[in-house]
Order: sequence, then structure tokens, then C-alpha cells
Amino acid sequence: MSEMLEGYDLDRLTIATLASHSSLQIVHGARKEGLGTLLVVTEDRAWFYEQFKHLVDRAVVVERWRDLCSERVVRALRESSAVLVPHGSFVEYVGLDCATGVPVPIFGLRSLLAVEADQHAKMELLRKSGVPTPESFPPGSDAGRPVIVKLPGAKGGRGYFVASSGREVLRGLEEAVRRGDISSASEAMVQEYLVGVTAYVHYFYSPVLDRLEITGADVRYESDVDGLRRMPLRVLAELGLEPTFTVVGNLPLVLRESLLPVVYEYGMRFLKTTRELLPPGIIGPFCLEGVIDREARIRVFEFSGRIVAGTNLYLDGSPYSYLYWDEPMSVGRRIAREVRLARERGALERVLT
Amino acid sequence: MSEMLEGYDLDRLTIATLASHSSLQIVHGARKEGLGTLLVVTEDRAWFYEQFKHLVDRAVVVERWRDLCSERVVRALRESSAVLVPHGSFVEYVGLDCATGVPVPIFGLRSLLAVEADQHAKMELLRKSGVPTPESFPPGSDAGRPVIVKLPGAKGGRGYFVASSGREVLRGLEEAVRRGDISSASEAMVQEYLVGVTAYVHYFYSPVLDRLEITGADVRYESDVDGLRRMPLRVLAELGLEPTFTVVGNLPLVLRESLLPVVYEYGMRFLKTTRELLPPGIIGPFCLEGVIDREARIRVFEFSGRIVAGTNLYLDGSPYSYLYWDEPMSVGRRIAREVRLARERGALERVLT
Amino acid sequence: MSEMLEGYDLDRLTIATLASHSSLQIVHGARKEGLGTLLVVTEDRAWFYEQFKHLVDRAVVVERWRDLCSERVVRALRESSAVLVPHGSFVEYVGLDCATGVPVPIFGLRSLLAVEADQHAKMELLRKSGVPTPESFPPGSDAGRPVIVKLPGAKGGRGYFVASSGREVLRGLEEAVRRGDISSASEAMVQEYLVGVTAYVHYFYSPVLDRLEITGADVRYESDVDGLRRMPLRVLAELGLEPTFTVVGNLPLVLRESLLPVVYEYGMRFLKTTRELLPPGIIGPFCLEGVIDREARIRVFEFSGRIVAGTNLYLDGSPYSYLYWDEPMSVGRRIAREVRLARERGALERVLT
Repeated sequence: MSEMLEGYDLDRLTIATLASHSSLQIVHGARKEGLGTLLVVTEDRAWFYEQFKHLVDRAVVVERWRDLCSERVVRALRESSAVLVPHGSFVEYVGLDCATGVPVPIFGLRSLLAVEADQHAKMELLRKSGVPTPESFPPGSDAGRPVIVKLPGAKGGRGYFVASSGREVLRGLEEAVRRGDISSASEAMVQEYLVGVTAYVHYFYSPVLDRLEITGADVRYESDVDGLRRMPLRVLAELGLEPTFTVVGNLPLVLRESLLPVVYEYGMRFLKTTRELLPPGIIGPFCLEGVIDREARIRVFEFSGRIVAGTNLYLDGSPYSYLYWDEPMSVGRRIAREVRLARERGALERVLT
Repeated sequence: MSEMLEGYDLDRLTIATLASHSSLQIVHGARKEGLGTLLVVTEDRAWFYEQFKHLVDRAVVVERWRDLCSERVVRALRESSAVLVPHGSFVEYVGLDCATGVPVPIFGLRSLLAVEADQHAKMELLRKSGVPTPESFPPGSDAGRPVIVKLPGAKGGRGYFVASSGREVLRGLEEAVRRGDISSASEAMVQEYLVGVTAYVHYFYSPVLDRLEITGADVRYESDVDGLRRMPLRVLAELGLEPTFTVVGNLPLVLRESLLPVVYEYGMRFLKTTRELLPPGIIGPFCLEGVIDREARIRVFEFSGRIVAGTNLYLDGSPYSYLYWDEPMSVGRRIAREVRLARERGALERVLT
Repeated sequence: MSEMLEGYDLDRLTIATLASHSSLQIVHGARKEGLGTLLVVTEDRAWFYEQFKHLVDRAVVVERWRDLCSERVVRALRESSAVLVPHGSFVEYVGLDCATGVPVPIFGLRSLLAVEADQHAKMELLRKSGVPTPESFPPGSDAGRPVIVKLPGAKGGRGYFVASSGREVLRGLEEAVRRGDISSASEAMVQEYLVGVTAYVHYFYSPVLDRLEITGADVRYESDVDGLRRMPLRVLAELGLEPTFTVVGNLPLVLRESLLPVVYEYGMRFLKTTRELLPPGIIGPFCLEGVIDREARIRVFEFSGRIVAGTNLYLDGSPYSYLYWDEPMSVGRRIAREVRLARERGALERVLT
């Protein structure tokens, strides 16, 4: 890290991110904390982010997202003493190699990016944490109950489908192979379909304060699964539409207070496991994504090792953030605050990788 | 406009509106900006608005809403140097003639009221804007797919129904004629039923700053369509209930950031088209109401040319408003701010019609 | 009450509650108002609430919740000049005898706790208030329409079921007897299944200001009824799952402004009736829980005579609270504010029982 920070003017640190996902929240928060802000933006979106130039000190326009790792962009970032904040579009946009290799300090745990990009490694990390997870099945077998099939590289929920028999799974996977979405059925992940309601719990681990904070919760708003249920039954039955799970937005949620110790403990377990297996362990924001069943038990079917889009709901603070901070504290701002606190204590290497 | 403002004391401008829809937000915002506040209120509701007398400088009680255009009420408004803020109940309550003819300055584009009151003109304006819209069909024809049928004058979603064949459309319309809701089937509008999720995006165009702001987004909470889906399938099937779409409230929403450039562009297109066809074009708040499908494509099935009730969610600011303003900025307050800014710059005629 | 306050140091009043439900909100609000804070917490949760020690002056750890009424805990509470704030877990956790008998002043109407614990007395109080309620049926009879069956002691929505015939009701009740959930079918309450959408409206009655405030509204997020609707129809039909109503969280809601006078009037009627039948009548927060149908008519199927978990959404104020208060005002803070106002006016006996 000390090499990575070579030539950096620590008094003029700049928060940098790709112009997408939660970037407006991130620059808004950085500005509140008095840090510089930089957006890497593609040409087709530059006009839009121009609207928010009062929040952005510098925009670096690129032809393709992968240009993040070009010499020109890296130089621009390093000149600005930039700290990169990865978000949900980061690896998707620039690719895993660029994401893990870019010679610019990253706020967060760089080694987690590769785990997150691999569905199976991801579930494995959750299971090792001792967090309750759904059962997994080999793509061919009959689970004897409904399952959800997740294709690798499915982005934002697209490419998921629900099946109620092994035969249905195979039929769906064959179609996916035919469409070219996957090259072999074995690439898919087949999980028990959890009956209950989904909840996405946002956490922030502060290495500086050595404190895990719950920063919010949300429910994803997905097309068309959240729309189909509004169709008259006879029309829906007639059309025989299978739901899809494309995330188009987020709805705010608070959990029953009696669930908080449970989700907090799951967050702690996950943190602990990343410390053991991927030292120094998670830094900053992450999310556990679960289903809560009729007995109010939670099972976690996925995690995000960085800021999630659901935090965009809480640009002015969440019902949870106000329990920790007596001022509006978005996760974007919380990131910048952590960088500032780390700088003040000469501990930047504890939050950057 | 200079005639309309004759006799006005510009130092004591008053924001006036009908006591309904978003009026509490509007007077709350006006008070924050130091403007006067006036509510026109019917006798049966006066006791309720009395609870908020700390926000209301003057209440003008009327027997019927249409009395807005009576000599007495117009005099009271003009004496108070009032600027009328139209909202979703405005035309519905006072009628189109009074709404467009009332000799009191209106904040917003007065000529848009007539377009908004006519379902067909409304869709036409959207189409001319180059915003993607659902397909329309003549009431008799068979669309070959599910459609939603909208009766003219249907208020707050009442009187909509879904049909899956031309025959069903006709049967529904015949019933509507029998009930006296319409006089002829040809009055109805038949639109492709868009499969996906609904989203209502709130905009504010500031003529003073020449800036289009996204001020929020919401999902409508509708009875009984949002309730039927909670019934056990066998009970719902047994009852054979057709959903209705009466709006009873609103739920907050944030959109995926990658959708923002798209909705922003649609907002710009709509603004541009109103400038060309209804000069000087839209002023202040409006809303595009769309369905987002599984490919995350948006089609707009309706617009509102004024403040929408969904903005009531954001009385203390929205996740979007904080990107523009470093203080709580509801749309009600934004309206008052625009009036204040216009007054300071001697440009009231740019925001009043 | 004067006896109850004997030995109390009124300058050092402490807000005390059980560490669950809305306790974080309650201590957060008390701290904002400069009052002391105390949590009674079970051993297994103490570590969690430890995270919020910056909000909690004193934690009294107990083995079982019922120890609230032990000499040790009562002494600790009285030493701290504690005012107990009951919430939705209060009676459930400590039992009715302890709840109504604990020799510590309670913020709220103590005599309402017993009414709230008895499903039939609860509905009776609503009916006496002249608030529209669903029809009730004897457990054996055939209602001729879908009904919802509520088992006594069903907590957080567990143990409710929907039935569409008298025979189904009986079958469900027989099962409940067999499971040991009830000892006889006659214990259950059978209510008309209201078709529409649910809404939970939060109120606060201030004896000090003699003012009823609307403080918010929410929709409950329930497992698995809110999840089943997301399953593909064929899978749902195949599984034949009956929905359950376990509350796992809350979603924010604003109501159409035209519904506010209606819900406000219902709140007033309820307040008036508690004044007549349970003097001095309701104090502080309560909630009316209703279904709004396609004609936008509201029927109330339940009430809560104390703070509800839905208020946790509004730790930094709600769209309604800002109409009354020009600062963030959660219901937790509102309680503390009322205690403070009462103390300043020497009127504590008007808010404590």
C-alpha cells in the first residue's frame, strides 16, 4: 500500500468511482466530507453526469469502461490522489483483471472481488461463515422441491429462473445453452427456492473504529416478478409467463428489532471469516441478502462485498445510520468519513488495498 | 401576466392551493421559503385543515370547490397576492373552465391543464415527444394480447380494467355504458397491458435556473390490486375478483442509477416538446409514469403536468433532491423557492401563466 | 401517581423500556430530549445492545423478561427515576399481570393493556368508537364469504389463516387444537376477510398540548404472504401453500391526502371512546390498522394502544411529523418530548399512569 500511495498528496485525497450504480451517492458523500471527487464516465453518459458537476471535481471521459486500466486514466487517477470505490457495476464493467490489478488504491478488500465474481466461491464463503444458507443441488438432480437456477454472469437478476423439478431445471438450462448464455449446464447454480420474503441488510465495517454498523435495509424492486402479481389471475394463467428478476430499483425497509441481533451476528460471522480467509478481512460496506421465512428465520442466499444500490435510498441517512451518527450519514458519506478518519490517524493502509 | 399581477404586492406573495392532494406539502414548503400561505377549503374539511393552522395564513372556506372561480374567492386570492398551485385534484374539483380561466396567476403551464384532461391528447403529446409509449387500439379490435382499458374521467385509477381479448374489452365497456360511466364505448382508451413494474418519476423544470431536476420516484399503492395478490390462490380463484386500481397511497422508490440517464432524457424530450407545442413549455413539477420491463426498458403510459401525490413522501427531501440542494427540499418547497428566485430576478412572468 | 413518583428526582427522569421492538428508537429519542435512558435486556441480547451504549445510560440485565417485576429490577428502575414505555413486546414478554402491576410509572394508558391483550375486548372497543370494522362470525358458522381466523395469543401475525367456508374454518381450528395452539375452537376470532390493501396509521395524542397528531403510516412486510406472490403461478399452485402473516419488517407509506381527514376522524373517535370508557383515555402513541377498499373506504380490523414497530421507519421524522415539528421527531422522541413538556408544566400525572 505504501507504494500505491507514492506521490499521493494525502491532504488532497480524491474519491473516485465509475459513473453508475451508486456513484452519485458516493461523490455526494465525499463532497460532504471535504474530499475531492472524480468520476470515470463513458461518453454516452457524460452529458447526464454533467448535471451534477457541482458534486464532481473532475470527470474522466472514457470510450469503454475497461479504459479504467489504461495508462491515461490511471495517470489521471493517480494525479488526483484518487482512492477508487468499487460498487456493484465495477467488476461487471471493467472485468475482473482490471478490477483486481488497477494500480490505484481501492477502498475495500480487493481480494474479495474475485470471490464475489464466482457464484460457487461466494456461497462457499457464506457457508464457511456459519451463516444459514439455502441447500444447493447439482444441476441434473431432482431436488424434490422448487429451486431457483442462477446462470453465471447473470447481472442484476436477469437469467434467473424457478423450476419445480429436475426435468424443468434441465429444460431451462438446455435453452440457456441454446441461447448461448452458458456453454454447459454444469455452470449453473441450483439452489433451494426459499419460501418467505427477501431482505437485503446493509453493513459497514470500520477498521478505524473497529465497529460493525448496520446501515440500512431494502427490498429489491424487480421486473417483472413484482409486476406479474398485479395481473388478474386468469390473464396471468393464460399468458403462462415465467417471472424474471431484473432489478430496476429499491424500496426502503426496516426489520423487526428482534431480528437485528440475528442479522448483526451473521454480519459479524461473515466479517470474522473474511479476516481469516482473506486477510485483513472486509473493509467498509457489504450486504447480506436473505430470505426470512414464516418462523422469522433468516437464510442468506448471497452477499455483496461492497456498496449496494439499495443504499441509494438513504442519501440523507437511514433509520439505522441515525443510531450511530447524529448527522445525515449515507454509506457514500460513511466511506469518505472512514477515509478521513484513517488519514487523521495515519492509518490509511487499514482501509485501502 | 403583467395584468394578472396588477395590484399585487410582490413582497407579500402568497402560495394558494385547494386543500387536498398535496396541499399540506405545498403550504409547508411555502412557509419554509417565507411566502404567505392560503388554502381554499370546503366546509366539511375545514376542521381538519384547522389542525395545521400554524402553516396556513388564511383559509377561504367554500361550499363547493367550483366556488374558486366566484367573485368572492377570486377577490380574496387577489387581495392576498396569491399564486395558485394546481395539483392532481385541481381540474377534477373545479372543472376545466374554471381551472383554465381563473383570473389569478398560476404557477405552472396553464395550457397543459386541458391536454392533461383529455386522455387522447395526453398520449398524443407523449408520442410527439418521442418517448416510448404502449400501443393503443381502437375499443372494438382484438389486440391479440392483454390490454388495459381506461374510461375517461376515471379518477385515481378507478374505472380501469384489464382484458385479454377484444370480446372482453367490449363486454367491459358495455357494462360501463350500462352503469352510466360512459355514454359510448368509443370514449374509452385501450392500451397494451405492459408487462413489468410501474414507476412514477418526479421532475421539476426550473425556468429561472434553466435546469431540469429529478426530484423523486414512487410506486402507487392501489386497492385492491395490491391486496388481491395476498389472498390464497384458491380463495382468489374462487372469488374470481377482477383487480381495481384505486390509488390510496404511495411507496418510496429509488431507481437503478443506470436508468437515470434514460428517464432524464425522457424528461428532457417531454420538456422540449411542450416548449414547441405549448410555449413557453412546462414550468415546475411534472411526472412521467411508466412500466419498466424485464430488459429494463421503460415505456411511459401517462404523464402528470403538475405536482403528483407521490411527492408527499418527500416532505423532508428525497434521495434525489439532496443531490441538488444541501437542505431539505420537498417539491412543495421547490415551487416556493422557484417563485422566490423568480421574484428576486424580476422574472415572475417566466414561472406564472 | 403521586405515590408512584415518590422518591423520584424529576430533574433526572429516565426513559426505560425492554430491549426489543422499538427500544432503539425510544432511547435515541430520549437522548435527543436530554432525558436519561435505561434498557432492561435479557442476557442473550445484551451483547447486541452493547453496540448502542452511546445511547443507553444503564442496562439492567435479566435472566427472563418477567424479572422486570422482580424486586431488584423495580428498585433499579425506581432508583433511576424511570418512566416505563410499553411497546409491542411488553405484555407479550412480561405477561399481563406484571405489565399492569409493575410499581413504576408507565407512559401511556395502563388500563388499555388488558383490553389490547383480549381480541374480543379489543374489537368491542373499536366498535364502540363508531369506527367501521369488519364483520365478526361465530367460529362454527358459514360466513358465505372468505374470512380470516385469528387465534388468541397469535404473535406478530403467526397463527392467522384464511378460509373460504365454515367447514374450512372448523378444519383449521381442529388442527390448531390438535397442535395445542388453542384448547377450543371457540377461542378463535373469525372476521370477514376484507378485500383491499392494508394500512397502519400512527397517531400520538398529547394530553399536554391537547392535540392529536398523525405521526406516520406503514405497510407491514409479512412472511410468507408477501413472498408467495412472487412465485410462478404453476409452482405456487403445485405447492398449495397457505400464506402466513409473520411480520418481519415495515415499509413506509403516505396516504392520499383526501384520506387524512377520514383517518384523523377515526383517531378522534377512538380517543374519545377511551376517555369515556377508560379514563383519562389514551396517552401518547397508538395505531389504527385497517384495510382500504376499491372505493377508498377504510375499515379498521385492529388497534395498538402503544408505539408500533412501523414507527421505526421514521427515526429521523416522517412526512407527517414535519407538518407539526420543525425538527426530526420520531415517535420515540415525541414520547420523551411529551414527558419533558409535562414536567415543565408540572403535569406529569397527565401522561403517566
